[in-house]
Parts: sequence; structure tokens; C-alpha cells
Amino acid sequence: MRSILIIGIGAGDPGQLTLAAADAMRQADVFFLLDKGAEKQDLIALRHELMARFAGPGHRVVEVRDPERDRTADGYVGAVDDWRRERADLLEEAIAAHVPADGHGAFLVWGDPALYDSTLAVVEEIQARGRVAFTHTVIPGVSSVATLAARHRIGLNRVGRPFLVTTGRRLAAQFPAGVDDVVVMLDAHCAFTRYVDEDLDIYWGAYLGTADEILIAGPVREVAARIVAARAQARERKGWIMDTYLLRRRDPGGGAAAPA
Amino acid sequence: MRSILIIGIGAGDPGQLTLAAADAMRQADVFFLLDKGAEKQDLIALRHELMARFAGPGHRVVEVRDPERDRTADGYVGAVDDWRRERADLLEEAIAAHVPADGHGAFLVWGDPALYDSTLAVVEEIQARGRVAFTHTVIPGVSSVATLAARHRIGLNRVGRPFLVTTGRRLAAQFPAGVDDVVVMLDAHCAFTRYVDEDLDIYWGAYLGTADEILIAGPVREVAARIVAARAQARERKGWIMDTYLLRRRDPGGGAAAPA
Repeated sequence: MRSILIIGIGAGDPGQLTLAAADAMRQADVFFLLDKGAEKQDLIALRHELMARFAGPGHRVVEVRDPERDRTADGYVGAVDDWRRERADLLEEAIAAHVPADGHGAFLVWGDPALYDSTLAVVEEIQARGRVAFTHTVIPGVSSVATLAARHRIGLNRVGRPFLVTTGRRLAAQFPAGVDDVVVMLDAHCAFTRYVDEDLDIYWGAYLGTADEILIAGPVREVAARIVAARAQARERKGWIMDTYLLRRRDPGGGAAAPA
Repeated sequence: MRSILIIGIGAGDPGQLTLAAADAMRQADVFFLLDKGAEKQDLIALRHELMARFAGPGHRVVEVRDPERDRTADGYVGAVDDWRRERADLLEEAIAAHVPADGHGAFLVWGDPALYDSTLAVVEEIQARGRVAFTHTVIPGVSSVATLAARHRIGLNRVGRPFLVTTGRRLAAQFPAGVDDVVVMLDAHCAFTRYVDEDLDIYWGAYLGTADEILIAGPVREVAARIVAARAQARERKGWIMDTYLLRRRDPGGGAAAPA
């Protein structure tokens, strides 16, 4: 039976690859790369660098055009569903055509496949259709969130306290209730700028783990403008940006400020 | 100047070590191991296995007795603070005594150092005292949460939605408001059993990434008793347990059930 490996490869630093991920890459007969257009050629180049270092001899690389996704749609979930279906059609065809019987096909996923990534869902949709039979395995990776925390040398939680991971879209609508530590992903619109009047610290990072890494931290009221400017500049210069951040309320209920 | 490396080593599978973590281990002159008592000898053995494979020649290992921690105290944060201070005293002395000037001391942290781990806070407390000068670096790791998701082949979030990471103590008090996906850490008392009347699925895992790994998933009302029994049995057999789980509310607001 065919096997599909969904491999977390870390946030951008090849050093974040795990030994298990490197082993999985060596096993792979074929790698599927989703071409997201010119603006992410840097990321494709990084994947090629990993394959050059870790893939076994005779492996093949199949580039699949990623369908356009309507990121502006009001019906966000619906738009994601359409896009995923189209993506599934393309990948189903690619798996059937390129993964040998008893062979291994691999997807290289930035960060950790469990965190705001659609690869697993697409693979399961193809599997559920039942036209191409395969097993699938997920190899966890170092997430951009773990990398953000490591670079800023902070914990994600404070002693005995929770933290929330959410999206920029949701943070823009309102600050989540009942939590004082919020990790924000997929924020194209700097939702943190809505909270400059609150006693929040921000720990922001872009291109985490790469040579282009940018880190800014401080009270959100003091550094928000600097982050907005740095983000716009970097995006202009490179053509794309990947960033994430933690918002941390100061002295929540007078509690301790250190992680445990 | 001395340097302290806080190295995330993954959830228990040596294959989860990253290349950067292996490099950091090779650099380390001395490893500090906190001896948590007989019940965790398995974990100490696993750390020794990693050192045997990855540490450089001539490295030393210093075992430091971990102070007793009052886990039953009502004043949880206060108890953690006392324990951390005592731990800092012991480690400050050990760093001063054992890390050569310009040398590297290392802490091997299970999972990711940013997630419910106190090593970073203790190291910063020692640094703030100013009696032993050193720099410190965090090498992020694959967390037990990422491993839980990978083994169950699920995403932690659903499309465009948030998830909360919290403790068993907090979940026992109440189900968090405003979220339908909750990762629970440090739950010694099976707080999920309080929610068997709700439409929740649970994805539970113990000893993740090790040969003893146990995975159970299903509607919490159907599998809660099985998890309680499996957990008690394993704890009895091995003398310790490390487990974590995700609670996922079914069809929140009629939304999609797959990650993205």
C-alpha cells in the first residue's frame, strides 16, 4: 500500500528538522511541493535545500500548482472549503500518478502540521474519497510558535495559567475573554494595533528561524508602530512575510510573571 | 563568558531531537540533570541515552537533587515560587562550580521549553541575582502537544478558530468560555470526567513518543472510563505517568470539523 508522510520541518531553520523528519525524508520516493506563486519562492528554495541535504538518491519532486484562494471572502470557512476541494483534486491525481505502489509520498510542512495548516485535512479528504488507497503518518515539527518563544526566551504560559492560540481575524473582532496570554497567527492586518491603550506586552517575530528573522518586543503601546513599519518594509523588500506574536497582559490578577 | 543552553529534546522519542539540539548537545561541556526521585528514573535513563548518542567527548553530567514541591498546596503559585527559589540556589551553585569560563552548560528539557516548564524561569532568576554571569539560549523542541496531535493525526485548531492550552486544575474548576478546542496539561485528576454529559470528543495520549505510548480517542462520554482505567494501570505499572489531551466540542456553531 502507498504511504503518505506529512512531515513537519520546523519554522525555517534547517537545524529545526528532527532526526525522525530527516529519516522520513530519506524514505520518500516523491515529494509534493505546492507552488504558491512567485512571492514564496524563498520558501520553495528552502524546501529544495532540505531535499538536497536529506532526501534519498533517486527521489522525485512534483510541483503542484496551488489553487487560488479567496482570502477576502466574507464566508471564510466556505472559501477554505472550496479551495481545499480543488487542492484535493490536484493532489489526488498527483498521488495516483507519482507514488509507486508500496512507495512513500511526502509533504514538507513548515512548522508543525497540527497548527493552522491544511495538509492533513486535504490528505484525509483524498483518502475518504477512496479512489487512491494509502496510509498516512504525521511527523510533528517545531512550530513557529515554539520558535517565537525560544527567540524571545519566554514561556508561552505563566505559572498554572492558560494561553490561547487564535487568528488575527478573531483578535481584530475582540480581545478574547478570560485569557491574558494570546498567541496570534495569520494576522495580515496588525490586529494588535487595536490594543495600544491596554497594558499589554507584545513579543513579535517574522521569518522566524531564517537569516531574515526580525524580533521586536515591548509594551504594545510603545512598539506597535515600529512593528507595523518593520513589517511593511520587510514585506515590500521580500515580497512576502510570515509572522506571529504573543500578547501578554501585565500582572493579570497580580499573578506571577514567569512561566512554569 | 559562560553560556547556558536550554535544549528542547522532544516528547520522549530520541528521533524528535532536532539537528540544532544535537549540535547544542555536542557543544555542551556539562549537563545538569534534575533528579526527580525514583519514579522518574525512566526519563533520566532516556536523557542518558541521548547524551550517549549526541554529547561530545569529555562532557560531564552533574545530577542535582530536585527540591520537594508541595503540589497539594492551596496557594499553588506561592508553592511554585518557593520551590523555584530553592531550585535556583542549587543550580546557581552547580553552574558556578561546574561550567568552565567560556564553557557551555546544558539543560535537557522534555518537549518544548516554552510549554509548562520552569527551567527558563529558574535560569533567569539565577542570572538576575548577578552572582554567576552567563548568557542563555533556548533551542525549541517538539512539544508533547504537537506529538499528541501527530499521533492522533488531527489539527489542534479548526478552520479559522482558536484553541486554548490550559491545566487540569483549571479545567476541573470550569470549562473555559468561548473556546471549543482545549488542550489540557498537568492533569493528575482526570478533569475530563466532569464533562461526560457534553458533546465532546477527547484525544488522549500518555508516554507520547516512547515505547509505552498509549492513545485513546472518542466521545468523552464513551471513553472517559477507559482512559481513567488505562491511566491508573499504567501509572501503577511504571510508577509515573505523563499524559495530555485535547477536548474538542462537536460541531461548534455548525462549523467545519477539519483543521486548516
